[in-house]
Amino acid sequence: MQEYTKYMADRVKTMKGSAIREMFKRMADPEIISLAGGNPAAELFPGEELSKIAGKILMTSPTLALQYGTTDGYPQMKECARKRAEKVNSVGENDEILVMTGANQGIDLTAKALLNKGDAVIVENPSFIGSLNAFRAYECRLVGVKVEDDGMSMEELENALKTNKNVKMIYTIPTFQNPTGVTMKLEKRKRMIELAREYDVLVLEDNPYGDLRFSGEDVPTVKSLDTEGRVIYAGSFSKILSPGMRLGYIVAPAPLAEKIEMLKQVNDVHTPMLTQLMCVEFMKKYDIDRYIAKNRELYGKKCAKMIENMEKYFPADKVKWVAPEGGIFIWCECPSIEDITPVIDRCLEKKVAIVPGSNFAVDMFAPSNMFRLNYSSATLENIEEGVRRVGEALAELL
Amino acid sequence: MQEYTKYMADRVKTMKGSAIREMFKRMADPEIISLAGGNPAAELFPGEELSKIAGKILMTSPTLALQYGTTDGYPQMKECARKRAEKVNSVGENDEILVMTGANQGIDLTAKALLNKGDAVIVENPSFIGSLNAFRAYECRLVGVKVEDDGMSMEELENALKTNKNVKMIYTIPTFQNPTGVTMKLEKRKRMIELAREYDVLVLEDNPYGDLRFSGEDVPTVKSLDTEGRVIYAGSFSKILSPGMRLGYIVAPAPLAEKIEMLKQVNDVHTPMLTQLMCVEFMKKYDIDRYIAKNRELYGKKCAKMIENMEKYFPADKVKWVAPEGGIFIWCECPSIEDITPVIDRCLEKKVAIVPGSNFAVDMFAPSNMFRLNYSSATLENIEEGVRRVGEALAELL
Repeated sequence: MQEYTKYMADRVKTMKGSAIREMFKRMADPEIISLAGGNPAAELFPGEELSKIAGKILMTSPTLALQYGTTDGYPQMKECARKRAEKVNSVGENDEILVMTGANQGIDLTAKALLNKGDAVIVENPSFIGSLNAFRAYECRLVGVKVEDDGMSMEELENALKTNKNVKMIYTIPTFQNPTGVTMKLEKRKRMIELAREYDVLVLEDNPYGDLRFSGEDVPTVKSLDTEGRVIYAGSFSKILSPGMRLGYIVAPAPLAEKIEMLKQVNDVHTPMLTQLMCVEFMKKYDIDRYIAKNRELYGKKCAKMIENMEKYFPADKVKWVAPEGGIFIWCECPSIEDITPVIDRCLEKKVAIVPGSNFAVDMFAPSNMFRLNYSSATLENIEEGVRRVGEALAELL
Repeated sequence: MQEYTKYMADRVKTMKGSAIREMFKRMADPEIISLAGGNPAAELFPGEELSKIAGKILMTSPTLALQYGTTDGYPQMKECARKRAEKVNSVGENDEILVMTGANQGIDLTAKALLNKGDAVIVENPSFIGSLNAFRAYECRLVGVKVEDDGMSMEELENALKTNKNVKMIYTIPTFQNPTGVTMKLEKRKRMIELAREYDVLVLEDNPYGDLRFSGEDVPTVKSLDTEGRVIYAGSFSKILSPGMRLGYIVAPAPLAEKIEMLKQVNDVHTPMLTQLMCVEFMKKYDIDRYIAKNRELYGKKCAKMIENMEKYFPADKVKWVAPEGGIFIWCECPSIEDITPVIDRCLEKKVAIVPGSNFAVDMFAPSNMFRLNYSSATLENIEEGVRRVGEALAELL
């Protein structure tokens, strides 16, 4: 075979795929309990409702469902996205809404519209690997800011803004952050807006988990605090309807939305029509907030189950975590060790999968003593058994 | 509102959207006959079959259809794509197949994997605007090579390879090219492979129309002539099943496919599951080649109808065209004028939409005396009436 590296763009030469998604490919073994992914609970998927909806759409409106659509999104689907964003006061008067084939596409194309090679993006450290890798592909510099129990450190953020050149944006998942589960407190959100103004940068707010609060009080989105059109908001139907449908959206000031739309036009032309029409019909016929409430309740139960078993099975005083008030992740730190890798491997031997912290770090090669647990996807029984096995591995190695 | 240009990446500052897709947005007027788009015939869409298939999938396999999938594609969908590609001998032994959310995504991400700023891409001039704009977004140089009645000029191609630095790839739609409808003859395909070897560049072969031949003899794909792993092949289900489903694929040497897959992972994570599963079931239950044959027959009829009326209504000897043997487009030249724009505008006044040649040109700002007609989408009656109106406009202005 040819040597292909010479043909490749610099941006991909050193690119690594998500180790998590790679792990999935290897996880064909049905005995493995996965606490690794970010999958929502499948047991509540409205399969029957969507089956009827899809069947009817294709029978009564085959041309609409099967022909080309417009790049910005099917008009009624844009309205559905608008409703979700308006519910959290996150549509400004000069904003446009674009339907995306999953929120990740919105993040990727926003980065593509903003980032020149060498520009800096300030990110929570750790953060969602899908976004970090999307940014990396534009050959920008990632500047990490530590995540505290109440969100991104504002001191470090200010320092990062002060000391880095060509910062284009701050990327944040302020609510039930991936991977830490942490929610940024209101004062910090306000401060972030102030700092963005002071240093004249944009903010990309990624909010896929915001609807999944099962305790505590809602905190306004960063976007809702923005009076200057500095915040681009990425929303998702993946955690409130179905990730396999790949439906998300971007709310952005019109001049930026216009560019993002052009980039989508040359990327996938438009989001598939059938899935858009299905979402529209689902929101017409059913109360999506009631459906989300059921998910929230289930996640609250699953989270409690996980913490109860972490307290029972994890070696006492050797693992630190913050109980989340929503979302789907718990982030754990093992202060007595430097590198979690042997624990991850031991877990796989015991047929339970968890994700090492290094995956989410700005510096992927530095050792990490952290790991991420997911409670949305496994059953209550598997959460108990999975956590028990992780506890065994920890006890053997810490 | 803020001034946003300062935040934008250089790549989007001068970017223009596809005028064709913009035109669609304005074409809400139902009296307008569109000969402008690239839409396949909706009258044959298998809505009823797909309705039953979608309903059943969501009823019996809701988790599979609604949960996250893998980035490379659902395994059985990859097999469906492989079958289509193998039918035209276009899978090499070291190739991998990736399912794409439309072939355009495959073209965009292939360009992203290959192109550094300043690299050159050699393209047919004119060519498909979606691909040209995708390439432009990576800040490469487009080098146009003229399209003759039997495909890209090999003399110009050789000259372009000789005189341009950092050529990474040749992009070609060799069969029923968009917009010219022209098919590259076999000798030229062989020569293209030779030249690619001699100058050590890759070839990206885009073949969305290859199945739509209604007269003449099939010509082997460029990919099928490649013994060195130089050709990346983009296939599509848009013109043989449904464009609104957004299903395409890429066949690429494994080391390149690996990078393209990583770029897809951070773009839309994976192609929606339901549409993939629907395509798999459709190909299991029905003979897709019989369905394609019906489309081919219809397109042959529509093309004949269009040419019959062009001969009847276009001013004699003022418009030149080559009758296509397949695909969905006829390309027209008006040698007596320099700029087709007044004709396009007059056509819109007469409520018929056609696309000016400048849209497909490497230099979008140079005047063009060409226009593109589409015959797949309009009804036979509208083809006659639409061509009559275009003929009127031409008679008034030529």
